[in-house]
Amino acid sequence: MIIKTPNPPYYAVIFSIVRANVDEAEYNTIAESMATLPAQQDGFLGFEYSPETPEGFSLSVSYWKDDEAIRRWKQHSEHLIAQKLGKEKWHPAYAIKVARVERAYSQGV
Amino acid sequence: MIIKTPNPPYYAVIFSIVRANVDEAEYNTIAESMATLPAQQDGFLGFEYSPETPEGFSLSVSYWKDDEAIRRWKQHSEHLIAQKLGKEKWHPAYAIKVARVERAYSQGV
Repeated sequence: MIIKTPNPPYYAVIFSIVRANVDEAEYNTIAESMATLPAQQDGFLGFEYSPETPEGFSLSVSYWKDDEAIRRWKQHSEHLIAQKLGKEKWHPAYAIKVARVERAYSQGV
Repeated sequence: MIIKTPNPPYYAVIFSIVRANVDEAEYNTIAESMATLPAQQDGFLGFEYSPETPEGFSLSVSYWKDDEAIRRWKQHSEHLIAQKLGKEKWHPAYAIKVARVERAYSQGV
């Protein structure tokens, strides 16, 4: 669902992926770690995601205090393994964008 | 699906919404305009979205050449009507974030 974020500036990582037909057990184990481990990182603000389309496309956004926190998470040992598997086995197509949130509007969050 | 984007910097608008139970005909008509009209705006780069969860949450991201293009689209007459309906009738909760994409990685896009 929608997470509460602080006043800008902060950072967002937009993660657009297509998932291949893969070993579900391996994928789900690591996907779960990738959804829970960030919460233990300094500077992590939250995570929003929505379901896959029938074609295997999905979109998720994680929010971070600053770019340093994103760079640290990128070098986390378990994340490095997931990055390698994602690139080589799971995601025939993906796009990751690191963006600085400059302004925000919300209601009911 | 995943859209092709130019080299950074460019801009992203992250749109996180919860949809109320509303008049589907009115909602769908305007939602369709909001999905097609941006393509006619100067500086629009593309749009990624994923399906609603059973709770009515969805996430979408539009990409723009610069912040000026986003500000122009925000003032578009049909968009102003949609903003008003979204705020007052359709979206008990929403968050809109305007962010400057600083770097990006992709494969197969």
